[in-house]
Amino acid sequence: MTQPSRYIKILDTTLRDGEQTPGVSLTLENKIEIAQQLNKLGVDVIEAGFPSSSEGERKVVKEIKKIGLTSQICALSRCTRKDIDAALDCDVDLIHIFIPTSPVQMKYAVNMTPEQVLSSATESIQYIKKCGVKCEFSPMDATRTEMPFLRQICKAAQDAGMNSLNIPDTVGCMIPRTIFELFKELKSFIKVPISVHCHNDFGLAVANSLAAVEAGADQIHVAVNGLGERAGNAALEEVVTTLHVVYDYKTNINTRLLYSTSRLVSSLSGVSVQVNKAIVGENAFAHESGIHTRGVTEQPLTFEPISPEIVGRTRKLVAGKLAGTRGIQVELNEIGIHPNETQLTEIVQRVKELGDKGKAVTDADLIAITSAVMGQVIGKEKIVDLCDMAVITGIKVIPTASVRLTIDGKEYVASETGVGPVDAVLKAIQKLTGNIEKIKLSEYRLEAITGGSNAVAEVIIKVEDEKGNIFSARATREDIVMASVEAMIDGINKCLLKNRNKGKKQ
Amino acid sequence: MTQPSRYIKILDTTLRDGEQTPGVSLTLENKIEIAQQLNKLGVDVIEAGFPSSSEGERKVVKEIKKIGLTSQICALSRCTRKDIDAALDCDVDLIHIFIPTSPVQMKYAVNMTPEQVLSSATESIQYIKKCGVKCEFSPMDATRTEMPFLRQICKAAQDAGMNSLNIPDTVGCMIPRTIFELFKELKSFIKVPISVHCHNDFGLAVANSLAAVEAGADQIHVAVNGLGERAGNAALEEVVTTLHVVYDYKTNINTRLLYSTSRLVSSLSGVSVQVNKAIVGENAFAHESGIHTRGVTEQPLTFEPISPEIVGRTRKLVAGKLAGTRGIQVELNEIGIHPNETQLTEIVQRVKELGDKGKAVTDADLIAITSAVMGQVIGKEKIVDLCDMAVITGIKVIPTASVRLTIDGKEYVASETGVGPVDAVLKAIQKLTGNIEKIKLSEYRLEAITGGSNAVAEVIIKVEDEKGNIFSARATREDIVMASVEAMIDGINKCLLKNRNKGKKQ
Repeated sequence: MTQPSRYIKILDTTLRDGEQTPGVSLTLENKIEIAQQLNKLGVDVIEAGFPSSSEGERKVVKEIKKIGLTSQICALSRCTRKDIDAALDCDVDLIHIFIPTSPVQMKYAVNMTPEQVLSSATESIQYIKKCGVKCEFSPMDATRTEMPFLRQICKAAQDAGMNSLNIPDTVGCMIPRTIFELFKELKSFIKVPISVHCHNDFGLAVANSLAAVEAGADQIHVAVNGLGERAGNAALEEVVTTLHVVYDYKTNINTRLLYSTSRLVSSLSGVSVQVNKAIVGENAFAHESGIHTRGVTEQPLTFEPISPEIVGRTRKLVAGKLAGTRGIQVELNEIGIHPNETQLTEIVQRVKELGDKGKAVTDADLIAITSAVMGQVIGKEKIVDLCDMAVITGIKVIPTASVRLTIDGKEYVASETGVGPVDAVLKAIQKLTGNIEKIKLSEYRLEAITGGSNAVAEVIIKVEDEKGNIFSARATREDIVMASVEAMIDGINKCLLKNRNKGKKQ
Repeated sequence: MTQPSRYIKILDTTLRDGEQTPGVSLTLENKIEIAQQLNKLGVDVIEAGFPSSSEGERKVVKEIKKIGLTSQICALSRCTRKDIDAALDCDVDLIHIFIPTSPVQMKYAVNMTPEQVLSSATESIQYIKKCGVKCEFSPMDATRTEMPFLRQICKAAQDAGMNSLNIPDTVGCMIPRTIFELFKELKSFIKVPISVHCHNDFGLAVANSLAAVEAGADQIHVAVNGLGERAGNAALEEVVTTLHVVYDYKTNINTRLLYSTSRLVSSLSGVSVQVNKAIVGENAFAHESGIHTRGVTEQPLTFEPISPEIVGRTRKLVAGKLAGTRGIQVELNEIGIHPNETQLTEIVQRVKELGDKGKAVTDADLIAITSAVMGQVIGKEKIVDLCDMAVITGIKVIPTASVRLTIDGKEYVASETGVGPVDAVLKAIQKLTGNIEKIKLSEYRLEAITGGSNAVAEVIIKVEDEKGNIFSARATREDIVMASVEAMIDGINKCLLKNRNKGKKQ
């Protein structure tokens, strides 16, 4: 890009459009936590909610405004006195008003004539301005609005004193070329900053937002993980990373916090991010095939557009049927295992055979194969081993688990209760292993299961030692409880083995 | 679009690049099933695998070719005699060869000079052509290749007789504007068809593929659900739907099979699709907020860019804190409940209150609220009710469950074993309810859990009656087993209630 570096404002609407994701509901505490994270991340404006939609929603916006964040706080409002008063009552910095302007929405969503829409919009803007608050105006469904009417209402809104104009592609029907042309036209007569708000119905929200910026847009509406109505909004992490890395434009975002922000929102909203999601998906910086793992081991940029650290992540090499020798070697070295070249070739061969059977190769599989090839060397080094386990749950039954483990060959027994069978058994295991080293479960993840009730469950566990080192382990089983136990024991063994190997490092 | 309608070829690489998704491994049977579905869907070319990578992979490609599908079968190959011979051995219609051409990949991925790369590429093309097979050539990492070298190697490949050229944006670093310019330049001197293969590292794979088509690209490489290395490839369903709906271009794809194809690949690959994924995500045609549900109830196009039926789906209205009166009314009517206006207002109010507490409003919640408001009318109509349940699992313990239910007020007891505790208990329930009506579990879905082992589990169940009507129910609990049981009982009740209500229909 040869243009001088531009500054693009980021308005985050995770707490408003993002919460309109069907099935998502956040508590006041959740929303405050997300607002604080967005502020730390550096978004310019936080759209905190839609105060007139419910009492709870109004309280949320008020409370977020009261924290005194650096980010500006914005509230959404229809073009009615009742809605605007609810927003004013929250003492926000900015009120974002919207009204449908496309023929189909004027007729069926609000049943108003163009004249009514026009006067409602301008009166609302004037009222907000008279109250001394800033106003961003959205002609809803702008991209399906007839151009003469869009021009007319935007001019009228400008004359009425709006501080900024937002163009929502409400049903996501634009492509980069058409939104570019629309913004070029709008920039020719709109003198206040223009924002873009894209929906992802065809998978083009990010590209359309960037095309609008190319045509002069000053601000982008985004949501973390691309949350929002239907297929969602433009994903904050994708928009911002592309602006920084590809365009060399500036935003106020600290990109190193993008991943932790994504994790927080995913965990609080309950909406998981697919593994192949750009920037924040589990696989975004993972490599399995041999050509790729060899490349990134030599020089990361061979198969990565950016360094994962830029967005707060690390690289991951995965064993699998397409895995190459280098990837598997690096993975084994990481846990203190150093096979020679002949052994390594044999291990890779067996991993491929397992993969051909349609099995995802787990860490446990890799270790089992390596043990076999290297003559049980690793099996001998297993510190914690599970002997017996039983779990019960039901109605009027407190979920209860008992386990019998050997730790360095000595037997221990413990029982625990929990909120469910998995919680109970993992607590029982930690009770015992806590005696040798303080290892805590830092993340438990169960991949989504689709199919029948007998489909295979995949559990990924992260354990953390006292120094904050994190070890992850994965197990797949038809029984969710057994998969969880297997992954937990593997994670603990990895952690203990690594720490002991460090002690006797050459 | 004013251009005359163009035909764009679709090459699907779900079975090749898609399978390079870290963690994904498909069996021979899985791959044949997917290939048959892709053929039914109408893709022009199926990239079936990388024969030289393993024995199993070679067998897969051979078997897929043997079925005799209408789609052409393509195999991937490096520019080596060994790789090409492995591909030839599979008797494929087309061999897709690749070699790195960017400075970083030539140096670190294959350690070759540009001259070596050039001669290796041309010799490979000549060898394939001599064997009477079609050849598509990919200069890998083309978008980070120096333009003079890219021009040189593409011309040389054309002279050597390649049948088509593919331009891979290997690390996904293009934006629509830059890929458009690149394709314009290539089209000026390449006379064979040109294909585009985009990766989604910045979330731009679909937009970049479409921009290449605008500049003249003849074919697009896609993968179902956007599977592939790292953040994946351009998603088949997004590319094709946009080509049809927005561009008015033609492909050979039957879009009504897009959703079922996505479900099949998701289920066989184990890679779930996020709810807010365009076209095929669970929420892509779901509406919660009041303004939206009112709009789509009056006229679907108010808040939908296309009719969901076009891609083989149906619309979904979801109760929630932002839900409007119309959405909730439609949802209740569907299960045969008809509250009057006063009751409806009260139900909506209580749903909002529940949502403000941060709870996702489940179907069970909506029914509980409606029951309370309408004076237990619905409670009385509950046909199946759970009284007692116990489940046990462990090592050397066959997962076993017992349940006590009332069906129409009468008590029944049953026990069952299963592959895990959830499977056992759901089988026990079905054993009992099977006595009154053949209802089968058609889908079990457990949403991914992230957080601690005590995080809330969300289970979605679909049950199917004898006439093929499907009913879904959802439950959230900290105990996975309890959540599964609750959802199952709810689903069965919905199905039984609806069928009885139909009987006494006014």
